[in-house]
Amino acid sequence: MIGLSSYAGVMESLMNSAEEQQPSSPLANSWSKKQESSKNQKPKSVGGFVLVHAGAGYHSESKAKEYKHVCKRACQRAVDQLKAGALAVEAVAAALVELEDSPFTNAGMGSNLNLSGEIECDASIMDGKSLHYGAVGSISGIKNPVLVANRLLSEAQKGKLSAGRIPPCFLVGRGAHDWAVSHGIPPCLSEKMATKFSLSAYKRNKRKMELAEKMDTGHNQTKKRRQSSENENGSGCLDTVGAVVVDLEGNVAAAVSSGGLAMKHSGRVGQAAHYGCGCWAENACNMNPYSTAVSTSGCGEHLIRTMLARECSAAMQSEDAHQALLEAMQNKFISSPFLASEDRVLGGVIVLRCCRCVEAPPSQNIQGILVEFLWSHTTESMCVGYMSAQDSKAKMVWLQIPAASQRCPGSRG
Amino acid sequence: MIGLSSYAGVMESLMNSAEEQQPSSPLANSWSKKQESSKNQKPKSVGGFVLVHAGAGYHSESKAKEYKHVCKRACQRAVDQLKAGALAVEAVAAALVELEDSPFTNAGMGSNLNLSGEIECDASIMDGKSLHYGAVGSISGIKNPVLVANRLLSEAQKGKLSAGRIPPCFLVGRGAHDWAVSHGIPPCLSEKMATKFSLSAYKRNKRKMELAEKMDTGHNQTKKRRQSSENENGSGCLDTVGAVVVDLEGNVAAAVSSGGLAMKHSGRVGQAAHYGCGCWAENACNMNPYSTAVSTSGCGEHLIRTMLARECSAAMQSEDAHQALLEAMQNKFISSPFLASEDRVLGGVIVLRCCRCVEAPPSQNIQGILVEFLWSHTTESMCVGYMSAQDSKAKMVWLQIPAASQRCPGSRG
Repeated sequence: MIGLSSYAGVMESLMNSAEEQQPSSPLANSWSKKQESSKNQKPKSVGGFVLVHAGAGYHSESKAKEYKHVCKRACQRAVDQLKAGALAVEAVAAALVELEDSPFTNAGMGSNLNLSGEIECDASIMDGKSLHYGAVGSISGIKNPVLVANRLLSEAQKGKLSAGRIPPCFLVGRGAHDWAVSHGIPPCLSEKMATKFSLSAYKRNKRKMELAEKMDTGHNQTKKRRQSSENENGSGCLDTVGAVVVDLEGNVAAAVSSGGLAMKHSGRVGQAAHYGCGCWAENACNMNPYSTAVSTSGCGEHLIRTMLARECSAAMQSEDAHQALLEAMQNKFISSPFLASEDRVLGGVIVLRCCRCVEAPPSQNIQGILVEFLWSHTTESMCVGYMSAQDSKAKMVWLQIPAASQRCPGSRG
Repeated sequence: MIGLSSYAGVMESLMNSAEEQQPSSPLANSWSKKQESSKNQKPKSVGGFVLVHAGAGYHSESKAKEYKHVCKRACQRAVDQLKAGALAVEAVAAALVELEDSPFTNAGMGSNLNLSGEIECDASIMDGKSLHYGAVGSISGIKNPVLVANRLLSEAQKGKLSAGRIPPCFLVGRGAHDWAVSHGIPPCLSEKMATKFSLSAYKRNKRKMELAEKMDTGHNQTKKRRQSSENENGSGCLDTVGAVVVDLEGNVAAAVSSGGLAMKHSGRVGQAAHYGCGCWAENACNMNPYSTAVSTSGCGEHLIRTMLARECSAAMQSEDAHQALLEAMQNKFISSPFLASEDRVLGGVIVLRCCRCVEAPPSQNIQGILVEFLWSHTTESMCVGYMSAQDSKAKMVWLQIPAASQRCPGSRG
């Protein structure tokens, strides 16, 4: 039994309706109404737009307020950048820094601890304009991993290194840390990145693990491993963070950052550092009428093996964005042959798609950018927020799939 | 000016014609003849087939003999496994071990040294049957990185870890090393993995770098970086290794292993550890009539950003495999918008595609597996070898793009 919740909005017409949608339910029919309303209005430039998420996972509702706060601050940071004339890629990095700095999210400060009690982070960023990409995996001792990913991206854009060497787009571990420091990003003591909350979660998870292993002793190994309860798992909190942005010029960018699964093995790299899996951004081109940006959250291994960010981006070239997203989530994720052996498939995505629309007769050639923003998740909860640079009003949405709306995979046509 | 060389063969009919094709040239017309000949013969089970590469790059012809030898041994190892009843994934791992163990290839033993004079390897493996995948990045002190990737794959297939934790599919750095050792893979002193050849190449590259940086002093930084000569670059030798296999049952598997670019920054991870970029394997299913397996070689960053292994695999569902591969190399690699800013695009692929063909009336239901094997590269040279489990006769091909056959991107329709 896998639930799927989704939402789709169009800039301008829907800014005030999203609050009404929470808690969200599978909105299979809602989009058609919205599409009609958007057809009746003239699209106009929105001056940039940002959509962020503070993770798809299983959160306590008691933390909802904090999540909404950090999402709002992240939106504000991105919009401040957009208003100052920044490109999408700079604005998305600014949003991520705010999300990483929150002790409540599983990214940067307050990240999950691994099996050895250490923090190792993954992050990546993609620029839809240049199609450049930067990523770091399993990096320790850096407060904002997204800044290292962003610096890798910008360094690669400068061209080759001395003696014709090709600059890296993906660095991991100690090497990533040292590269960051040598490029002016200050190191941060790992102890300072752990919070009271992440340390107590580590102790709790460790006890659970030890208990589970004790209970399993003597059982058949394969049986033991398959029977372990999902509800007791260390990956209960999958709150990776991310953002997607479109700037004034219509360029898109996407980013994602994560402390990874709780109690992961040291050196494990999740989707947040994986090209095509954690985030994707691609400006419109000859072949693709829409610019698209996607950021994912959830179980890293599921998101890697289905390459969910890129799949959702590709799906967004269909006319009906909401229908395309629902189908992508169903066919490329929930029912994916790549996850056939998994009993539960855990993930969430936020999506932005934009196109330039002529709002006046061709002789006047006045163009506006129509922005559609969507999200969907199979996890119990997800927190998203969005803001337009035009009005700087943030809307925060706390999403939970009601038990009654959970559907079997394949229940959609 | 980017040259593109390619080759396509069909099992049975072409085993004896490949030697005639070397040095290869862009064989735009050769495939149609071959296809006709294959139509006139009854496909039959080939008992398994392996295709390996010892890298696409710039090699000295003086090493051609060694490369052919190691390719032959790798083919033999895979075929031995297939004859003993092994599945494709086990056979492909066996081929990779042989390729890694050669001091002449840039994988495992004899890998390129990084900026700090250390060896850090990437490897990945994919099983077309289960669609599981395992990878290691920037791993040191392990003689055969592919065995760690393969172990990650097989451990993930066993299901969840204690307390419901999801097993990793990608480990990097020290954590990957420790995981390998704790799973019974013996450590190997890094000093033992460096060879006389790799050490002297490191010294030579270091001198070149220092000279280049000295010459550049005082120049404009951006100009300096862009002007660095390709011919003097440290990435002159891109000889990543890989293999693709189909077993008796028609399952496919692919693997790749690399020491990475010479003089890379510590922690840099290339395509060999990147999902969808270094290798891809997918058995036929409802949607896809062909099983496909792909392994790539070349400049890691180019292969990552174009996700070349997965793109080539997807292209292979077209009827004409050779045409599809040429188009994929042209449109998804050489002319890819993702590499628009690159002056040269360096890569090579080996491809296997198979389908079950009924060779007798349906009442008899006798099925055979038709195997097509192809390769293509933009680099100056590439070395491949292949062997059928039916006759155990290896064919080795040393490929070089003749200057006269180099073509401009886009010269194909």
